[in-house]
Amino acid sequence: MRYEELTIEGRNAVMEAFRSGKTIDRLFILDGCKDGPVQSIVREAKKRDTIIQFVGKERLDQLSGTGHHQGVVAYAAAYEYAEVEDILNAAREKGEPPFVFLLDGIEDPHNLGAIIRTANLAGAHGVIIPKRRAVGLTATVAKTSAGALNYTPVAKVTNIGTTIEELKKQGMWFVCADMGGELMYRLDLKGPIGLVIGNEGDGVSRLVKEKCDMVASIPMKGDIDSLNASVAAGVLAYEIVRQRLQ
Amino acid sequence: MRYEELTIEGRNAVMEAFRSGKTIDRLFILDGCKDGPVQSIVREAKKRDTIIQFVGKERLDQLSGTGHHQGVVAYAAAYEYAEVEDILNAAREKGEPPFVFLLDGIEDPHNLGAIIRTANLAGAHGVIIPKRRAVGLTATVAKTSAGALNYTPVAKVTNIGTTIEELKKQGMWFVCADMGGELMYRLDLKGPIGLVIGNEGDGVSRLVKEKCDMVASIPMKGDIDSLNASVAAGVLAYEIVRQRLQ
Repeated sequence: MRYEELTIEGRNAVMEAFRSGKTIDRLFILDGCKDGPVQSIVREAKKRDTIIQFVGKERLDQLSGTGHHQGVVAYAAAYEYAEVEDILNAAREKGEPPFVFLLDGIEDPHNLGAIIRTANLAGAHGVIIPKRRAVGLTATVAKTSAGALNYTPVAKVTNIGTTIEELKKQGMWFVCADMGGELMYRLDLKGPIGLVIGNEGDGVSRLVKEKCDMVASIPMKGDIDSLNASVAAGVLAYEIVRQRLQ
Repeated sequence: MRYEELTIEGRNAVMEAFRSGKTIDRLFILDGCKDGPVQSIVREAKKRDTIIQFVGKERLDQLSGTGHHQGVVAYAAAYEYAEVEDILNAAREKGEPPFVFLLDGIEDPHNLGAIIRTANLAGAHGVIIPKRRAVGLTATVAKTSAGALNYTPVAKVTNIGTTIEELKKQGMWFVCADMGGELMYRLDLKGPIGLVIGNEGDGVSRLVKEKCDMVASIPMKGDIDSLNASVAAGVLAYEIVRQRLQ
C-alpha cells in the first residue's frame, strides 16, 4: 500500500497506466487537443468510465509536476477500490447485519479520510462512494484515514441511487441525514443498514433521498446550519452503534 | 469580523499592534537579534504573555508576505477572544447548566473550526483553548467553523488544568475522552459539564486527565486506535445532548 499521490504525465505513461489496469481517478486533457494518441487515451478512459476533464494549458501546467505533460495528466488512485460485494462478504464473515456508509458526493479529502476512520471504528463493513463529483482515494484521504484504509474496504459505484436499489433487494434499509427528518433517537437503526451522508454544501441529493427508507435528523440547538460532514457522519454512526449495543 | 489571516511585519507595525491592544497569537523574532527596538517588542510580548519563537532568517522570510520584516513577524488573531466569564454568563442568560468544551492542545485549524461548529450546534456555551501548543483563532479556523465563531465565544487560557480547578469551585463537572475510560453511555453527563478533548496525537495530557471527574470512552470496534479529534468531540458532545434531552 502506498501513500504518495500518483500523478501520471505524458501520453505514453498515461496510456501505459490504463493498459496495466491501474485505477485512474481522474484524467485531465488539454482543451482542443485532438490528435491520434490523445484520442486513443480518451477512448481507453471512456471504456473504463473514468472522469475526463478538458482544461486550459495553465491549469494543466499547475497539475503537472514535471512540466512535460504533453497535454495529458492522470491522477491514479493511491489505493485499490473494493467491490460492493466485498463489503457484504465482510459482514457475512463476521456474522453481523451489514452496516455500510454511502457518501453522496463528499468532496473534501480530509472529510473522506475522517469518515473512513469513523466507519472502521464504528464497526461498519465498508464505505461506498460515487465515481463523479466526489473525491477518490487520494494520498491525503489515506493519510487522514489514519490507517483505516488498510482495513475498511471502499467501493466506487457509478450511481449511489442504483446501488441503494440493489442493496434494498438484499434486505438492507437506508437512512440519510437531513434537517427536517425524524430525530435520530426515535428511529430504529438496529437492522442491516446503509447510512447515507450528503455533500458538504448541498447535503443528500433529492434522487438519493427519495430512495432512503428513513430521514434522520441530529438535534441542533445553535445558530448555524449544519455540522461538518465528517462530524455528522460520526454522530449518526454512533447512534447506530448505541442502538446496536442495546 | 474579518476572515483574512493577519500577518504583521516590521518593528514599528508590530509595536503599534501591541500598543493598540490587538491580540497577537504568536510572535516570531530573528534568532540573535537583540537591538533596542526588538528588545522593546519582546518586553511588550512578555507583558501580554504572547508566545515568542526565535527563528532563523530563512523561516522568517517564509513567514513574511512582503519580505520587509526587519527581523519581526507577528500573527494577529483573526477573531477576538472572549473571557471564561463570558461563557458562564451565556449559560446563565439562557438559564441552562453550563456546557463548555475545553480543548487540551488541538493543533489542526480544521479540527478547531469543526469543533467550534459542533459546540455551537450541540448548544454548548463556549470553547476554552490553551495559549501554548495549540492553534489559535486563525482565518482557517474561522472559515472551517462555518460562521459558528460569530456566535460561540472562545476563551484562551494560560493553563487548562488551572481553569478546570476554578470552574470546579463553581460547581462544574469535567469529563475527558480517553480509551480505558467508562463507556460514555454509562456516565451521568446531564449537569453543568466541561467536555475535555485531547490533542490529535497524544490525547488528553496526564495533568489535565487527573483533574477530570470522569473519563469517558467511545465504543471502538475497529482495527485502528482513535477517531479524528473533531469527530470524537462530536460523538461525545451528542451523548451529552442525548442525555440532556431525556
